[in-house]
Amino acid sequence: MLRLTLDMDDVMADTHEKLVSIVLNDFQSTLDKKDFEVKSLRELLHPKQLTRLHKVMNEPGFFANIQVKKDAVETVYKLSRFYEIYVATAAMEFPNSFKDKFDWLHKHFDFIPWSNIVFCGHKSIIHSDYLIDDHVRNLNAFKGEGILFTAAHNLQDKTYRRVSNWKDVAELFLPNK
Amino acid sequence: MLRLTLDMDDVMADTHEKLVSIVLNDFQSTLDKKDFEVKSLRELLHPKQLTRLHKVMNEPGFFANIQVKKDAVETVYKLSRFYEIYVATAAMEFPNSFKDKFDWLHKHFDFIPWSNIVFCGHKSIIHSDYLIDDHVRNLNAFKGEGILFTAAHNLQDKTYRRVSNWKDVAELFLPNK
Repeated sequence: MLRLTLDMDDVMADTHEKLVSIVLNDFQSTLDKKDFEVKSLRELLHPKQLTRLHKVMNEPGFFANIQVKKDAVETVYKLSRFYEIYVATAAMEFPNSFKDKFDWLHKHFDFIPWSNIVFCGHKSIIHSDYLIDDHVRNLNAFKGEGILFTAAHNLQDKTYRRVSNWKDVAELFLPNK
Repeated sequence: MLRLTLDMDDVMADTHEKLVSIVLNDFQSTLDKKDFEVKSLRELLHPKQLTRLHKVMNEPGFFANIQVKKDAVETVYKLSRFYEIYVATAAMEFPNSFKDKFDWLHKHFDFIPWSNIVFCGHKSIIHSDYLIDDHVRNLNAFKGEGILFTAAHNLQDKTYRRVSNWKDVAELFLPNK
């Protein structure tokens, strides 16, 4: 059975959407929601705002309450019949997020066993056939075949095979019926 | 640079020693300290005692205060000049231990960057040249070369190259001067 590893933020969880609504609601920003669809937070925000956002992300509870990406649960469930599913998420940058992320996965993806969850910094440590991730730097570090999940910060990349949503993932990885 | 991945419990940290003193001090056990040097906790304890010990291990703080194995810090520091050092520890079984383990590593091995710490269930996910671990099942799952760190529960194994302490690790992995 081939192994398929999934990144969590902005692949399984709509972390970007939560960050954007925090900026729009709490940061007295003059930006429009549309701006965040085509440019990264790093491009749009002032360094001071990025630092503030980083602090918000490290507060206990931030990662516990994030929306699941559309069609993710059903698709991952179907994929789990054909692939060994792992989740690899970079929790080390936010040391308060471990438990929240673990609980979030258990709540929304309870069919993924705890033994298949990985918290790591560098994705180069992941031994897997495939990795679906929204960061080009993670796919560059990864030794297997990387698939880029579309996000505002990776629209320019032409290096990796791209999926824009979970319907695309299903089409790419599930056998045709 | 070759990558050398280290298990934490009973390789870097003397977790067994802490568990044994809890059993001897709090469990009204008639066993002797010597018993725990040659037999595993699983062999020596009643299933109810093992359940109780499991609960103790899942209490916040348990993993924050464990002795470092003799010569571990100096040896890992020397090894970090010749190898890319990663730490891979199975925190998923104890979801309250993430932060404690992370803080423990930062306290005792602050020269290992957070990006090189991995919390995982199965060690089969680890992409590394070497893994030093005290569990034969972890080395079996691992795709690189496994080195067995001696512990009471693995004395019978003849499959893997064995190190009994950090002096042995230094001898095996550091270049001769």
